[in-house]
Amino acid sequence: MSKNSPGNYFEDFRIGQVIRHATPRTVTSGDVALYTGLFGGRFAVQSSDAFAKAIGYPRAPIDDLLVFHIVFGKTVPDVSLNAVANLGYAGCYFRSPVYPGDTLSALSEVIGLKENSSRKTGIVYVRTTGYKQDGTPVLEYVRWVMVRKRDEAAPAPGDHVPRLPTVLDPKVLGEACPPIDLPAYDNALAGSDYRLDDYQVGERIDHVDGSTVEEAEHMIATRLYQNTARIHFNQYIEGKGRFGRRLIYGGHVISLARALSFNGLANAFHVAAINGGRHVAPLFASKTVFAWSEVLGKSELPGRNDVGALRLRSIATADHPCEDFPFRNGDDYDPAVLLDLDYWVLIPR
Amino acid sequence: MSKNSPGNYFEDFRIGQVIRHATPRTVTSGDVALYTGLFGGRFAVQSSDAFAKAIGYPRAPIDDLLVFHIVFGKTVPDVSLNAVANLGYAGCYFRSPVYPGDTLSALSEVIGLKENSSRKTGIVYVRTTGYKQDGTPVLEYVRWVMVRKRDEAAPAPGDHVPRLPTVLDPKVLGEACPPIDLPAYDNALAGSDYRLDDYQVGERIDHVDGSTVEEAEHMIATRLYQNTARIHFNQYIEGKGRFGRRLIYGGHVISLARALSFNGLANAFHVAAINGGRHVAPLFASKTVFAWSEVLGKSELPGRNDVGALRLRSIATADHPCEDFPFRNGDDYDPAVLLDLDYWVLIPR
Amino acid sequence: MSKNSPGNYFEDFRIGQVIRHATPRTVTSGDVALYTGLFGGRFAVQSSDAFAKAIGYPRAPIDDLLVFHIVFGKTVPDVSLNAVANLGYAGCYFRSPVYPGDTLSALSEVIGLKENSSRKTGIVYVRTTGYKQDGTPVLEYVRWVMVRKRDEAAPAPGDHVPRLPTVLDPKVLGEACPPIDLPAYDNALAGSDYRLDDYQVGERIDHVDGSTVEEAEHMIATRLYQNTARIHFNQYIEGKGRFGRRLIYGGHVISLARALSFNGLANAFHVAAINGGRHVAPLFASKTVFAWSEVLGKSELPGRNDVGALRLRSIATADHPCEDFPFRNGDDYDPAVLLDLDYWVLIPR
Repeated sequence: MSKNSPGNYFEDFRIGQVIRHATPRTVTSGDVALYTGLFGGRFAVQSSDAFAKAIGYPRAPIDDLLVFHIVFGKTVPDVSLNAVANLGYAGCYFRSPVYPGDTLSALSEVIGLKENSSRKTGIVYVRTTGYKQDGTPVLEYVRWVMVRKRDEAAPAPGDHVPRLPTVLDPKVLGEACPPIDLPAYDNALAGSDYRLDDYQVGERIDHVDGSTVEEAEHMIATRLYQNTARIHFNQYIEGKGRFGRRLIYGGHVISLARALSFNGLANAFHVAAINGGRHVAPLFASKTVFAWSEVLGKSELPGRNDVGALRLRSIATADHPCEDFPFRNGDDYDPAVLLDLDYWVLIPR
Repeated sequence: MSKNSPGNYFEDFRIGQVIRHATPRTVTSGDVALYTGLFGGRFAVQSSDAFAKAIGYPRAPIDDLLVFHIVFGKTVPDVSLNAVANLGYAGCYFRSPVYPGDTLSALSEVIGLKENSSRKTGIVYVRTTGYKQDGTPVLEYVRWVMVRKRDEAAPAPGDHVPRLPTVLDPKVLGEACPPIDLPAYDNALAGSDYRLDDYQVGERIDHVDGSTVEEAEHMIATRLYQNTARIHFNQYIEGKGRFGRRLIYGGHVISLARALSFNGLANAFHVAAINGGRHVAPLFASKTVFAWSEVLGKSELPGRNDVGALRLRSIATADHPCEDFPFRNGDDYDPAVLLDLDYWVLIPR
Repeated sequence: MSKNSPGNYFEDFRIGQVIRHATPRTVTSGDVALYTGLFGGRFAVQSSDAFAKAIGYPRAPIDDLLVFHIVFGKTVPDVSLNAVANLGYAGCYFRSPVYPGDTLSALSEVIGLKENSSRKTGIVYVRTTGYKQDGTPVLEYVRWVMVRKRDEAAPAPGDHVPRLPTVLDPKVLGEACPPIDLPAYDNALAGSDYRLDDYQVGERIDHVDGSTVEEAEHMIATRLYQNTARIHFNQYIEGKGRFGRRLIYGGHVISLARALSFNGLANAFHVAAINGGRHVAPLFASKTVFAWSEVLGKSELPGRNDVGALRLRSIATADHPCEDFPFRNGDDYDPAVLLDLDYWVLIPR
């Protein structure tokens, strides 16, 4: 019997099954530097120990999306190695800040299974928790993926579609954000004078700049997360495939959009939760990614006067600047749209 | 009103205006590793804690040019987002060593303004200071850029051209270099037997090797410095522009020339000052950069017997090896020349 | 006389000559992050401080091959700058674990010299030792390279071919591995249930995945090791050369094969020794590297009950998936084969 891992097929999953994923990963200032080099983020809290300390963190925390990508990457060999499509996320929120030196591990519970009518594939719903070396949970999210069956004749391993939240409740949004010392929060160093009250629901912000993506960049990023999804790395196989090219990890687009969003949202220093995300179209190297955001909502955080939350929709596009806020044409997305992301950020009051 | 930043136009500046730039940045061993991976520097002092400690540093300092690039990057959104051309540097010198863990911030004072006769643009002169979390200045330089006006009819915001030094005085060259324990300085580990007295004014050194630059490399480097100049990152826009390509950050050429210069200047371990630099021609990805240097001068450092200074001109070229020392053809630069850099390095006696 | 270094030619070497190489190099968590981004390794011991501590290391050690590449890189300017071909390795074994913060230096002794009958070149054999700041040896290996003569008429500087081991003795294989606390070794976190006794001599494992290599990636990696071999970096020169392209450092293929081998050998956490390696064909950017391994032997380690050793042959190929285990066609290697590596790994019992 071969010792390489074939990954799990649809019929290998069971409702309630708990999967402890390999490989634990110590996050370091080296990861922070490489993530900065790949995305160019400029949020002061994640960039500066001095700034972070001044406002109440023990030091600069690891970028929220870097934490997400590392946790997500661990689940790939067990959950989505035989996936046909990554269908969605829900209920993603950050539960504790992560600092250089922390070791991240991940665990997933199968919370739903639904065979497709073709009987060739099925949908697997997992709730994944990322946690630190001492067991502290740092991140939780649900995702669902369409996974091939090894054997079409195999019986469906379960039949349950879980109920999922469409929007995270503001009461969980502050868990990964310590109390912020507002007088110490320096707008000039942070890069913007706009705080919570300056943003209006319905307001749209063009993030202006564009980032062209190279093959080396997305592969270095995706390997940094130890994400092994084959479609990102193997031109020999993908060259013969549907697109003729390596497909860029969807999370790469999320990180690009977040970095671009600094121009207009510089004080939105913490991604507190992701309500849901849709990868509308695949991204390929040599394309230039642009982004814009709309404020979908605002919320106070129960019991906190330091920060509030903005609910944002960020749209990323390929080769299409966003001054005209491309989104939908009737029922369809504008063909330039790559990503439709609904999430909560925290911002000082 | 849109919350993204349009940057400053010529009429937005005032003589004496002080700009505190975003984003403070903690420099780490992660940045050092990535900078090594991008440029391949081999100077022992910056590469080895053990070597640096042996000669008198508390640990390996951050490469001088990495400090320069990080400080420079912070000024881009405020000073040169609407620049037509980066015209020059002067009076750049390093005032304190920077170590992993230090947080760098930057502040610029507008010291000169001169509208061009077209009234469409003007020249802005700024003196920028980079400093640490405790206020220690680490770097100071003047640069001048040609910046667009938003409104041609706007009155000129000032009319003053500052006097600038052409060469830094040797008395400021040692500020960022602790006393060096000469007997502990190991030539074999450093890679060369040549010290101050072995170099002659007028001597020319071909640095032999060439470095081909890829798009991913210069973009990763420039994002590492959080430099947001759009021309480096956006192929969609630049593809329609004057060159049809992304332009590589001029500082990338400086770092390449410095790394190449190890071959012939291995003991010149500290860039103490940059007298001036001219980006003679733009560099594009896929070109191979070569370099050579001429010793323009030598100087003792007042009160110091450990190290002396060499004033160098380093010339970088594209796709042109430097055994024939390409420089000028009559009044013009040789068409292969990219960079003409005049600077001081320290070297053990 | 020019101050740049021409490197050594065959007639410059002497039997017994000892060369202390520049540049000492402090290895950091930044190097670890970049190495992860470039190769995507997932071995738990090198990835996680928490995992490493649990089983008996003080923290996660630096990847063995990263140590090898850094030590190797130092020898290039002195040993192989004028090499025609890198002919082989032997007797490579790791003698002490390396941790972030350690500074690596290298020293080589010339142990053999053999002029070729053409009198234009000769073979130089060196034994290289990598050691830490406190003198602890971390790595030792012999390599031999064919080096040009500067002057064909120069007399041969020596005539001795050393006897070299073909396989490292198991008694030296545990030197860089502390005692492992077996009950604390968590298979789920490590990514596999297979331990020493599960592998059979003669067993073959397809590592399945493929990695496409970009120019930026191999150059960043090779500069990270401060390896200055010109053929990897200079498209201007190589474009006019034999292959018309930059040649990828052979060690890059070794690291790719090692990272790929996780799929099937996840518990083989330590490369203890390299018996020998042959770079069968050059690798160029845009090719996709695959790998498979055969178990050539198994061994206990004298006096140890925690770990045992597997002797592996790993074969890497270009643009050729390895489910058919490509190796030899009669006397010749299969044309897809890049690398034939014979080495020992340690794995828990």
